[in-house]
Amino acid sequence: MLNVDIDRLIAELDRLAHMSDAEAPAVTRVLYTQPDMRARAMLKEMCTAAGLQVREDAVGNLFARWLGREPNLPAVGTGSHTDAIPYSGRYDGTVGVLGGLEAIRTLQAAGFSPKRSIELLMFTSEEPTRFGIGCVGCRLMSGAIEPAACAELRDSAGARFDDVRLAAGFTGTLASARLGSDYYSAFVELHIEQGPILEDKNLAIGAVTAIAAPAALRVELTGSGGHAGAVLMPIRRDALCAAAEIVLAVEAAAKESGSPDTVGTVGICDVHPGAINSVPSEVNLTIDIRDVAPGPRDGAVERTRQVIDTVCAKRGVAAEIETIHSDPPAAMAEHVVRAVEQAAVAAGASCIRMVSRAYHDSLFMARIAPTGMIFIPCYKGYSHRPDEYSSPGAIKTGVEVLARTLRELSEA
Amino acid sequence: MLNVDIDRLIAELDRLAHMSDAEAPAVTRVLYTQPDMRARAMLKEMCTAAGLQVREDAVGNLFARWLGREPNLPAVGTGSHTDAIPYSGRYDGTVGVLGGLEAIRTLQAAGFSPKRSIELLMFTSEEPTRFGIGCVGCRLMSGAIEPAACAELRDSAGARFDDVRLAAGFTGTLASARLGSDYYSAFVELHIEQGPILEDKNLAIGAVTAIAAPAALRVELTGSGGHAGAVLMPIRRDALCAAAEIVLAVEAAAKESGSPDTVGTVGICDVHPGAINSVPSEVNLTIDIRDVAPGPRDGAVERTRQVIDTVCAKRGVAAEIETIHSDPPAAMAEHVVRAVEQAAVAAGASCIRMVSRAYHDSLFMARIAPTGMIFIPCYKGYSHRPDEYSSPGAIKTGVEVLARTLRELSEA
Repeated sequence: MLNVDIDRLIAELDRLAHMSDAEAPAVTRVLYTQPDMRARAMLKEMCTAAGLQVREDAVGNLFARWLGREPNLPAVGTGSHTDAIPYSGRYDGTVGVLGGLEAIRTLQAAGFSPKRSIELLMFTSEEPTRFGIGCVGCRLMSGAIEPAACAELRDSAGARFDDVRLAAGFTGTLASARLGSDYYSAFVELHIEQGPILEDKNLAIGAVTAIAAPAALRVELTGSGGHAGAVLMPIRRDALCAAAEIVLAVEAAAKESGSPDTVGTVGICDVHPGAINSVPSEVNLTIDIRDVAPGPRDGAVERTRQVIDTVCAKRGVAAEIETIHSDPPAAMAEHVVRAVEQAAVAAGASCIRMVSRAYHDSLFMARIAPTGMIFIPCYKGYSHRPDEYSSPGAIKTGVEVLARTLRELSEA
Repeated sequence: MLNVDIDRLIAELDRLAHMSDAEAPAVTRVLYTQPDMRARAMLKEMCTAAGLQVREDAVGNLFARWLGREPNLPAVGTGSHTDAIPYSGRYDGTVGVLGGLEAIRTLQAAGFSPKRSIELLMFTSEEPTRFGIGCVGCRLMSGAIEPAACAELRDSAGARFDDVRLAAGFTGTLASARLGSDYYSAFVELHIEQGPILEDKNLAIGAVTAIAAPAALRVELTGSGGHAGAVLMPIRRDALCAAAEIVLAVEAAAKESGSPDTVGTVGICDVHPGAINSVPSEVNLTIDIRDVAPGPRDGAVERTRQVIDTVCAKRGVAAEIETIHSDPPAAMAEHVVRAVEQAAVAAGASCIRMVSRAYHDSLFMARIAPTGMIFIPCYKGYSHRPDEYSSPGAIKTGVEVLARTLRELSEA
């Protein structure tokens, strides 16, 4: 019998939500800012109180280990992230971190003693907000980014990643964050679905079988500015008009990729000089295209690139295109997926297999450990917005399924 | 013989250019900010040194009067503005203010004593940067805005116009800024062309016959956000995709208005939440459409409004449209235009009649006085950008033509 203390967990999620640079209910918690550092301190304190051994690596990835009966065996990992993009919600990532801790405390309260150690992780900067690339901590851990390249990442103020992580108090070489493939015997992440399927089908648990492949580009458009009243239409080289065509091209490329799973988004579109009576001379935009299969995604990226070339040539606008990342999709390990399904059955929770369209730290953990994910429903599939919501009942079921999965995997 | 001291004037323009919140060569000088207040102080000091009587009205419109032999007659006015939109150049407006002062000093040095008083004006907030509406000072002066409506204008931080002008030290009622139609016998403004015609035709002077009619809208688009990976394309209500269609519709409406003079610009496009992995939920944009004739302009505005309705209905995006202003075009007074032409002949300067596509304080001065404008060429027609440039020779000729025009009008 496992008794998840859902009231305690909801109170902790609420406390974490108020470590934020946005006004509630919105949450903004960006890498190494004060809310991020406060969240780390809160988590360390809670893990220590739960009797876990806490360590941080060179970029602040946080490890909290519940020592097993055979502590030299590879451990079972669980966890997620606590950083939050600007004006987002309180459940993305946090449910997997605080819920992971609650799963451990639930197993402790039930008198369980694991064979393998069970380790909770809080990954640094899953969100790409500050350095433009997601899963920085987990990429270093799994070898998906070179430490030298990571050191040179720059934020929008021009600060180097390596300088800001040192200033935040994290020392040691970036290379030291790398984990071997014998560190974990398995990894499992609890997360809100961030899509509408579980809620629509009234199901409690999604056992994730694959994570969609994201590709992201940054495009700098340079046209020619001038007075909005004086520069006649035929001689304009308006960077925002070029950007508008590109925004619509991304949408069309995603819709017409041949796969219903392809999504394409321009999330950032910064216009310079940004005055009502000035022709835009520069626009910086980001393009995010994803699919669970790399073929349709890469086709949509290629089509978008062709449109950028055509539009910019036609309009006399220069384009610089940078690939931020273009990662392969990840398959989850079949025995972990099965462990999740069996845990759901044991918890009396309905469950389907599904894919993750959002990426997660598990995309990279899959490179160094057999990995699985547990999805729970969220309100209307909303995420990355202030009204993101997952009910206490849904979270409680998720934590119980996670606890049962960890118990199973730690005995294997 | 009139001897314009062009070296002194260029040095003064340079001094003014460094009163700026942007790094040189860019200029940013926004209403009631420190650079704006420093520019006002500099101008008052220079006008006093030239023996002019200086006064400021309730919003900081600055008047500097050279008393005539018959001081009770309506005066002849000249002037322009010194505020500058973000990251713009050093000649827009300033040439008409400091060049106007130089024209007066040139006439003084030549021993001229005017019959009517000649009054230099520096208008408050010609640029719409801070309160979203241009020519605030001149609108009050000419009755083109109600004092009560003006008081309630808000800047992007939510501050009321009436509060910030009081905080800046300007007192008295807003209504007191109104001038009667017997205050000036004529008004003439020296300005860079902000278009390429004079430079292309290698001409020194443009005698402006009409000022284009600007219409400006603010559009708030509200769609639905969410995670860029998880929200599938068919259910999206992406506010930026709607904005992109509107940007292209403004361009098309201007190009296809039936008039080659129609211009349409989206200069501001702010995207919320503005994250690489979030579907844009809100976009705020501005639309600026102009023509020298109101018919084609209003047609283009109407077509744009129709597209906004269609696009937003199709995409499930809500639109709030606010008309910022929609002013009628202004004709210049024939006798002032002719005075400019004759002054150009006397100065040995080539001259054509032309229209102004940008709006100016003269658009509103024309409501209370016979008005004219003198254009001088600028490099490639560039304006509202850091590489805005007018040569010392071009400015010198413009100031001499202005001085001769003022001399003529002040004796009438």
